[in-house]
Amino acid sequence: MINIKENEGLNTLNHSCAHLMAQAIKHLYPDAKFWVGPVVESGFYYDIDLGDIQISMDDLPKIEKEMKKIAKDGKKIIRHEISKEEALEKFKDDPYKIDLISRMSDEETISCYSQGDFTDLCRGPHVESVKLCKNFKLLKIAGAYFKGDKNNKMLQRIYGVCFPTKEELEAYLNQLEEAKERDHRKIGKDLDIFFTNELVGKGLPMYLPNGYIIWEELENYIKNKEKKLSYQHVLTPPLGNVLLYKTSGHWDHYKENMFPKMEVDNEEFVLRPMNCPHHMMIYANSIHSYKDLPIRIGEIARDCRYETSGSLKGIERARTFCQNDAHLFVTKEQIESEFKSVVNLILETYKDLNITDYRFELSLRDPLDKVKYHDDDQMWNDAENTLKHVLDSIGIAYTSKIGEAAFYGPKLDVQVKPAVGNEYTLSTCQLDFCLPAKFNLTYIDEDGSKKTPVVLHRAIFGSLDRFIAYYLEETKGALPLWLSPVQVNIIPVNNTYHLTYAQKIYEHLQNLNFRVQLDQRDEKLSYKMRESQTKKIPYTLILGQKETDDQTISFRKYGEQSTTTVTLEDFINLLEDVKKNYKR
Amino acid sequence: MINIKENEGLNTLNHSCAHLMAQAIKHLYPDAKFWVGPVVESGFYYDIDLGDIQISMDDLPKIEKEMKKIAKDGKKIIRHEISKEEALEKFKDDPYKIDLISRMSDEETISCYSQGDFTDLCRGPHVESVKLCKNFKLLKIAGAYFKGDKNNKMLQRIYGVCFPTKEELEAYLNQLEEAKERDHRKIGKDLDIFFTNELVGKGLPMYLPNGYIIWEELENYIKNKEKKLSYQHVLTPPLGNVLLYKTSGHWDHYKENMFPKMEVDNEEFVLRPMNCPHHMMIYANSIHSYKDLPIRIGEIARDCRYETSGSLKGIERARTFCQNDAHLFVTKEQIESEFKSVVNLILETYKDLNITDYRFELSLRDPLDKVKYHDDDQMWNDAENTLKHVLDSIGIAYTSKIGEAAFYGPKLDVQVKPAVGNEYTLSTCQLDFCLPAKFNLTYIDEDGSKKTPVVLHRAIFGSLDRFIAYYLEETKGALPLWLSPVQVNIIPVNNTYHLTYAQKIYEHLQNLNFRVQLDQRDEKLSYKMRESQTKKIPYTLILGQKETDDQTISFRKYGEQSTTTVTLEDFINLLEDVKKNYKR
Repeated sequence: MINIKENEGLNTLNHSCAHLMAQAIKHLYPDAKFWVGPVVESGFYYDIDLGDIQISMDDLPKIEKEMKKIAKDGKKIIRHEISKEEALEKFKDDPYKIDLISRMSDEETISCYSQGDFTDLCRGPHVESVKLCKNFKLLKIAGAYFKGDKNNKMLQRIYGVCFPTKEELEAYLNQLEEAKERDHRKIGKDLDIFFTNELVGKGLPMYLPNGYIIWEELENYIKNKEKKLSYQHVLTPPLGNVLLYKTSGHWDHYKENMFPKMEVDNEEFVLRPMNCPHHMMIYANSIHSYKDLPIRIGEIARDCRYETSGSLKGIERARTFCQNDAHLFVTKEQIESEFKSVVNLILETYKDLNITDYRFELSLRDPLDKVKYHDDDQMWNDAENTLKHVLDSIGIAYTSKIGEAAFYGPKLDVQVKPAVGNEYTLSTCQLDFCLPAKFNLTYIDEDGSKKTPVVLHRAIFGSLDRFIAYYLEETKGALPLWLSPVQVNIIPVNNTYHLTYAQKIYEHLQNLNFRVQLDQRDEKLSYKMRESQTKKIPYTLILGQKETDDQTISFRKYGEQSTTTVTLEDFINLLEDVKKNYKR
Repeated sequence: MINIKENEGLNTLNHSCAHLMAQAIKHLYPDAKFWVGPVVESGFYYDIDLGDIQISMDDLPKIEKEMKKIAKDGKKIIRHEISKEEALEKFKDDPYKIDLISRMSDEETISCYSQGDFTDLCRGPHVESVKLCKNFKLLKIAGAYFKGDKNNKMLQRIYGVCFPTKEELEAYLNQLEEAKERDHRKIGKDLDIFFTNELVGKGLPMYLPNGYIIWEELENYIKNKEKKLSYQHVLTPPLGNVLLYKTSGHWDHYKENMFPKMEVDNEEFVLRPMNCPHHMMIYANSIHSYKDLPIRIGEIARDCRYETSGSLKGIERARTFCQNDAHLFVTKEQIESEFKSVVNLILETYKDLNITDYRFELSLRDPLDKVKYHDDDQMWNDAENTLKHVLDSIGIAYTSKIGEAAFYGPKLDVQVKPAVGNEYTLSTCQLDFCLPAKFNLTYIDEDGSKKTPVVLHRAIFGSLDRFIAYYLEETKGALPLWLSPVQVNIIPVNNTYHLTYAQKIYEHLQNLNFRVQLDQRDEKLSYKMRESQTKKIPYTLILGQKETDDQTISFRKYGEQSTTTVTLEDFINLLEDVKKNYKR
C-alpha cells in the first residue's frame, strides 16, 4: 500500500484535509480545541479536545458532510506570517496552541494558514484551495494522551485519508478493506486459530486447537526436512542463568530486549531471548573432531522478549514465540556448502508452500568502517565472497546492504510484507565468527591442533508464530489441505435419510487420518455450505440420495462453485495427492 | 531398599558403628573433633572437624582397617550417666560437645558411652560390644556446614553402613551399586541423553539429540493416543499475568513454589507452575452447549517451578519441565465415563511400555473434617463413590488415603519408586469442583440454564521429563526399539571388504526411517561390539564375507550372546513387528 507520508503531493493534500476536518469540527462543536494534526503513513489525523463530548463512529458522517460543504464552497488556503508575540495574542484562549507557540524561539517567524472562518497555526505547505480536498474519508477514532503522556488528559484522535480523485480514494479504501480482511489477527479470530486476553497477559498468544494443528504440521514438516539434512534436534530450557548471557554478550548488548531477571537461591535467571548460548553449551558438552563437522543442532525453541505493549501485534510480534532455530558448527572450508544448503532449504520450503512474494537481502560489512566489525579481514572477505558466489550460482537476486552486517558476521535475510505494517524478516542465515570463541568451542583438526568452528545461525520459518501469521495473510486463511485444521466437511442433504451414509464416509476418512467433520446440525443445507466456505474448509462433501444410492461422493472445493461427483476411492486418491504435494 | 533408620535393630547397630568409626579416626587423627553422628535411611554418618587435614576416598581403607582392628579387639560398650556439670568438665576441650551439652537442661542426666579408649556423649542405645560391628563399609565423604549454616565452618561428613552379617552387607552393597547404575542421572550421562551445567543454570536440564529422540517419540505416542480419544491439543505460553494466578488462587496458595514475578510495562508476569489457568481461559474463549461436552484440552505444556537447589535431581526434579497435561470439562453425569477413560488410558500406556511396578492411591476427603474441603456434600459423595466404583469395576487394587484429597476434589495417583530416593507420582487424575467457578466457566444445559462444568486434571506421563527419568531407571537404559535413539548399529567386519555391503544395508534401513548407524571407525570388531552393548543399542549387525556373499544379515540383540542370520527382508519384518508392538 502507498505510503502517504512519503509521497510529497499526497502529504500536502492530506495535511490540508486535516485542516478541513478541523474546520468542520469547529463548525459542529464550537468549543473544540486542537492539538496537532500530522500526516502519517496511512493518511492524516487530528488530536482534538472536545471537553465532555465523546465522538463515536456514528458522528463521522455528520463531520464528513460538513467537510464536503466547506470543500464545495472552495475557499482559498492563505498563508500569513506573524511574530511570536502576535501569535501568543491571537491564540491566547487556546492552551494547546499557547503550549506549541511558547516552545518556539522568540526570533522565529510563525506561519498560520486560514481558509474562510478557520485559521490554524501551521508550518505548511498546503494545497491552494479546500476545493482540492473533496475526495476524502474519515476512517477511525482513537484516544490519545496529550503529548503521549498517560498522566495528561485524553484527547480524541480522528483518522482520515484524502486523494486527488474519487477513483484513487476508492482504490485505496478497497485495499484498506482487503488488508483488514487479510490481517492475521482477524483471520486468527474468524478461524479459531489463536486469541489473546489481558488476563493471560499482553503479548502472550494462546493457540486454540485449530492453531495447534497448523503448528504441529509445520513443526513436523520442517523437522523432517532438517532430519534429512542430518540436523540433530535438541530440547533446551526457555531460561538460563544470567552468567550465560554475560558469557555470550547478550547481557551487555541485548538486555533492553529481555524480560527482567529473577533471583532464586542466590542465582539469577532470565528468560531467554534467543537460543544461541544454549546451543553453544550443547556443542561444548563433548569433544569434537574435524571428522564430526558440520554439526547441525536444531530446535523448535521457546523464547521470550520484552516488547512494548504498543508494538505487540497478534502472533506476528508477541512477547513469547518459538523459533525454528538451528546452529551449524562448521569449519571455514564448510561455510560454502552449508550456506548453500540453507539457501536451498529456504527455496525448497517456499516452493512447497507456494510462497512467491519475498526478497533477499545480503547484509555486508562496510569495509571503510572496519572498527564496527570483528577484526579478521581475511575471514570477512572470504565469507562475503562465498555468500555472493553461492547466491549467484543458484541464480538468486538480492539487495546488498553495505554496512548492515552484524558485528560478528554477514547475513542473508528473506524479507516479506505483512497485510498491515512494516516489512519483516521471515527467514535468515547469519554467519558468526565470534560467539564460538566466547564459549571456547573447539574441534581437533586433522593435524591435531585445536581450532574454533564458525557458526551459522539459521531459521527457515523464523519463528513458527510469525510464520503462521505471515502464511494466514498470504493465503487469506485458505490454507493448503495438509495445513487445514478441518480438511473435509461432510454435510448430509437430509439428516434423516442420508446420515448413515455420511457417517460411513466420515469414519472411513477419519480412519485414514484425515481431519474430517460431520455437520449434522439442524440447519439448512445452504447455511451449512456457506459456513463451510466461511471457515475455508478445503473440501465440502454434499451427500444426498443420489450419492447414497450410487455410493459416490459429491464435493465442492473451497472457492469453487461447481460440484464434482466421484467414487470414494477416487476422492481419497485426490486427497492423498493434494496433501502429499502441499496443494490447496 | 531397606530403610536402616526405621529398622530398630539396624538402627542401633549402625549407631554403634558410627562410634566405632569415630574411635578409629581418633586413633589415626588424634586432633579430630566430632559433632554429631546420626543414623539415616542409608546407614550412618559422622560430622568431623579434622582441622586442616582433608580426608579423601583414598583414606577410607585405612580407617576401615583401624575399625576392623578395634572390632576384633571386641571391647564392651558401656553406658555411664553423669551430671551436666560433670559433662561440661569432662568435655571442656571439645567445643562441639560443649555446644551440645550447654543446650541441655541443668537437671538432665547426661549419658556417655565408652568402648576402650573412646568415650562419646550419646543418648544410645548401643549394641553391647564393638565386636558386633564388624560387617561394615564406609561409603562416601561429603562436606557439611556446622549446624547446616553456610556461615559456619565446613566439617567433613563420612558415610557408612553396617549389617549383622557379611552376607547382608554384601547384598546391600550390591543393591546400592545397582541403584547407582540404575540412577537416571548416570544413564542419562552414559547414553548422552541429557546434561546439566551451572552456567546454563541449576535445575535446567538440556536434552541432547538422543534425549530429544526419546522425548519426541513419547510426545507423539501420547498425543496420538489422546487424539483417538478426541482430545484437542493447544499451545499456551509458559508464563502469565500475576492476575491470572490471583484468579485461580495459585498466587495465594502456591506462590512459594513459583519463580519470582517480573514487572514489564506496568504488568506483572510470572512463569507458570501449572497449566490449569491457561486451559480455563481456552474454555472461556467460546460459548459451550451441553452437546459440546466433554471438551478435552491437552497440551505438552512447559512449566517452571521454584525448587531448592538441594532438592534438584536430574530430570526427575528440575526447575523446568513439560507436563503431559490435559483438562477435561465435563458435566456431573460424565465424571464416571471420563474418569474411566483416563484410568484405561493409564493402564493401556503402562501395558504398552511394560510398566508393572506401581501402585494406585485414591485420595479422599475426611468426612469428619469437612471444613478442609469444598462445601458440597452431595458432589463429594457422588464423585468419591463414582471413582471407587470405576476402580472396582476395572478390578484395580488401590490404597484409600482418607483426608488426603485436595480442597477442590478427590484424586487418583499412580506411585512409583525411583532407583534412589523417595516414591513419587507418575500419573494422576484429579477432580476439581472449584476452579471452573473461579473462572466463571459455564455451559448451556438442555433446559437453557447456565451450568458450571466439573474439571478433571489429568497427566499420564506426569511430566515428560520425570517420565523419561523413571523409564530410564526401569529399563536400565535398554529402551524398547521404538524409543531407542539408535535402533540398529551396523559393523562391517572389515572396512575394506565389507563396507560397500554395510553401506547398502545402512541406506536401505535409513530409507525405511529406522535410526541406524554405521560404525566404520578404525577400531577392532570386538571393541565396536562391546561399545554397541554399552550404548544399549537394540540390534547390532555384524556384516562380513558370508553376509556379503549371501546377501544376508547377522545380528545380535542387546543383552544376548548369540548371533542370528536372516535375510534382509526377514530382518526388516522383525524390526517392524518389534517397533509396532513397543517391544525391546
